[in-house]
Amino acid sequence: MGKSIGAKACDFVLFGTKGDLARRKLLPSLYQLDKAGLLDKETKVIGVAKDAFTQEEFVALVTKALNTFVKDELCPTTLARFLSRCHYIGTNFTDPEGYSAFHDLLEPSKRVMVNYFATPPSIFGAICRCLHEQDLIQSDTRVVLEKPIGTDLESSHVINDQVAEFFNENQVYRIDHYLGKETVQNLIALRFANSLFSSKWDNRTIDHVQITVAEEVGIEGRWGYFDGAGQMRDMIQNHLLQVLTLVAMDPPVNLDADSIRDEKVKVLKSLRPINQDNVYENTVRGQYSAGFLKGSPVPGYLEEEDANTQSHTETFVAIRVDIDNWRWAGVPFYLRSGKRMPFKSSEIVVYFKNPPHNLYRASYRNLPPNKLTIRLQPHEGVEIQMMNKVPGLEQKQRLQTTKLDLSFSDTFKNERIADAYERLLLEAMLGNQALFVRRDEVEQAWKWVDGIIQSWEQSGEKPKSYPAGTWGPVASVALITKDGRSWDE
Amino acid sequence: MGKSIGAKACDFVLFGTKGDLARRKLLPSLYQLDKAGLLDKETKVIGVAKDAFTQEEFVALVTKALNTFVKDELCPTTLARFLSRCHYIGTNFTDPEGYSAFHDLLEPSKRVMVNYFATPPSIFGAICRCLHEQDLIQSDTRVVLEKPIGTDLESSHVINDQVAEFFNENQVYRIDHYLGKETVQNLIALRFANSLFSSKWDNRTIDHVQITVAEEVGIEGRWGYFDGAGQMRDMIQNHLLQVLTLVAMDPPVNLDADSIRDEKVKVLKSLRPINQDNVYENTVRGQYSAGFLKGSPVPGYLEEEDANTQSHTETFVAIRVDIDNWRWAGVPFYLRSGKRMPFKSSEIVVYFKNPPHNLYRASYRNLPPNKLTIRLQPHEGVEIQMMNKVPGLEQKQRLQTTKLDLSFSDTFKNERIADAYERLLLEAMLGNQALFVRRDEVEQAWKWVDGIIQSWEQSGEKPKSYPAGTWGPVASVALITKDGRSWDE
Repeated sequence: MGKSIGAKACDFVLFGTKGDLARRKLLPSLYQLDKAGLLDKETKVIGVAKDAFTQEEFVALVTKALNTFVKDELCPTTLARFLSRCHYIGTNFTDPEGYSAFHDLLEPSKRVMVNYFATPPSIFGAICRCLHEQDLIQSDTRVVLEKPIGTDLESSHVINDQVAEFFNENQVYRIDHYLGKETVQNLIALRFANSLFSSKWDNRTIDHVQITVAEEVGIEGRWGYFDGAGQMRDMIQNHLLQVLTLVAMDPPVNLDADSIRDEKVKVLKSLRPINQDNVYENTVRGQYSAGFLKGSPVPGYLEEEDANTQSHTETFVAIRVDIDNWRWAGVPFYLRSGKRMPFKSSEIVVYFKNPPHNLYRASYRNLPPNKLTIRLQPHEGVEIQMMNKVPGLEQKQRLQTTKLDLSFSDTFKNERIADAYERLLLEAMLGNQALFVRRDEVEQAWKWVDGIIQSWEQSGEKPKSYPAGTWGPVASVALITKDGRSWDE
Repeated sequence: MGKSIGAKACDFVLFGTKGDLARRKLLPSLYQLDKAGLLDKETKVIGVAKDAFTQEEFVALVTKALNTFVKDELCPTTLARFLSRCHYIGTNFTDPEGYSAFHDLLEPSKRVMVNYFATPPSIFGAICRCLHEQDLIQSDTRVVLEKPIGTDLESSHVINDQVAEFFNENQVYRIDHYLGKETVQNLIALRFANSLFSSKWDNRTIDHVQITVAEEVGIEGRWGYFDGAGQMRDMIQNHLLQVLTLVAMDPPVNLDADSIRDEKVKVLKSLRPINQDNVYENTVRGQYSAGFLKGSPVPGYLEEEDANTQSHTETFVAIRVDIDNWRWAGVPFYLRSGKRMPFKSSEIVVYFKNPPHNLYRASYRNLPPNKLTIRLQPHEGVEIQMMNKVPGLEQKQRLQTTKLDLSFSDTFKNERIADAYERLLLEAMLGNQALFVRRDEVEQAWKWVDGIIQSWEQSGEKPKSYPAGTWGPVASVALITKDGRSWDE
């Protein structure tokens, strides 16, 4: 523990190396790992795409991506070393013949092959088959799959089955990049290394939990892709349910990958189903109309480029989630995620119950509750709201909510906060599955999400409109206020 | 509540107006109350001492005290107004004839008489009798007595009886200036307005509590006075036991003075007696020898000016206190107070129990516990130590203790932190006894303290020597380490 270890030598194969994800996140993250000395000196990075690039053209593409998307200035030494690792194979992903070029690059006896599928899930199976047909799959070969896997339980079954035909579950690394965030990983330490929280993490002491992922951006030129998915599949199923499981899970037997994932699955199995009977009581979906963001006019969802003006796809979801188990009976989790919110913000807020008796009732009919806020982004940190007496002679018993604050960037000044993908790529190369999503998790999540989406579809109702730059439809406020609570501000 | 209220008009009579306490604390505090608009415009300040000062001489004495001991620059308007309130009566405190001059100054129908006895306790009774003989005591007349009251249970009985002959308990205000500190008052809000703490304030969740009052100073020319008392009477009995009661008390019925004091007395009654059988197991007393403080040599206690070189008086005490009640059974409170410590520091540290199971045992045989630190001085504030994951790629599960911090001076920037005496003088003028010590509290505290002092005396052992500028005798470390714990650093 605490020992600095880099990954063993890998052949890191990046399918879809020309794509947005690869250029924005994956190549820069590999570069950062190299810079931090965490890549073995023998590790190769092999880009795969359709184009017939020369080595020089590929190196130029990687260099451009790094120049564009690495935030700090590039280190010339690291850059030179990183580029010397880079190789390229041009092939149609579904053509096994094109994969023969791998034989010249890979050395399975020396380096583990880690395949990253930054491609549409529809061709995951085909890629696996091609790898198999070229006899490239060893027992330690890994595949990293970007979530969401499929668009519902059935399609995720198909994709997972296709991959499972060639890879065992212990070779499959399903990425939800939220699990790579420092603050999300810190959730486990926060919960299980601090008795101040661990001893009160249940329905006797917690009133409710809110999880918000607010995006400021709209759909950024990906209208077609997004409209086929919607916020429910793209964010709730994908990220918020993962965060929810880490907040809600029982203490795992130990910190091994499967111990943690066993507990996460139990939470997903305990989610109270939402169906036609209770969908309007427990969910609100919204779609942004034209509005203002930081003073500038922005178009509505149906007015974006390439928009189908009849779309009923939601860009905002709020849900009251009930977890039907011993720990959480009676403690709702309110999830909320939307595009074109007033600002970008991801946070978990745990509201504690009030003291059983209010000694300050002469001043406060209701005392403001203690709350624990875990800020995922921006300004990652942890914060406790508590009540203190206002100092001063005139205000004898005046209380004030005050904040005990731990900002990660202030506290850990010497530590660069790594991007989530750096952590996850490193873990995949290390062969540690704890931060990746197991098949049964994906399927339980889809099962629950499908119920909601089907109920929406069967009702035929349109999503409720909300102006861009606001916190979603008014109905989202009603969803929580009818329970006597309000969204965190 | 929250309403700004100043005190009603008073005749504030200050016996011992030439003394150290009056000049350093009381006159400056009255000035600050005046500056803050909290003194009624009719309020008078009447100094009483033996000398035959003229009005001009007294005004000069007050002005000099304010110039010397008010930290910020004097406000000319306030100063002029304050001096115009000042009157002087020169008399021998024990001579009733001298008190006739009061008749010219007091107006009992318009102003409440508040007598502050900044004199040796041995003449409290005589002053009361003089006031009585001159028929100056009304049913609303008050006396403010500086603690400690007496030097043991018996002598405190005598003094309290002498005062009680002329004043009912609801007219008597016993000052322990620790109760006027903002952070001490905040203890009640912290405990009873925050479910995060209120719900875990007992032996199921708290491992132990430490209360430290470390003085950097030695005896500052008061050798004779101090040697008759010792650290046990001067600090433990006086201040630390008060702080202990506020930390340990059960929730009061309400925030009224007697409701709170009822609970404090219950704690004092629950203190496990320390006698000859267990005194060396549970206490350590020390006396400083010559040493170094911040790099400069300082003399030992027996080498100070006027010292009796045979003195066995303690300048340091450490005690393990057990509170034998349902809430605290098995939770020791460690008290520690000494002179010539490395720096001035008063704090309460609440150590929470560890989580029932250590998930991080591969990295930590014992997880550092959560602790809540309430800093009384300097840098008043509240701090929670918790465990967080260290950000960074290389340290996968490395945890680090981190602090969530609430500094009063940073948080309440616009509020001047009032001196404890300002608060207490104001409360006495307002007629609110909550922050003053009731007779039964004083007596319960003496009863317990007497047991310890008598056991020490009977044993005939000398206090253990410790060099000035250290944290007391080595035995004080042993006192806590034999329980598997250590003093907070």
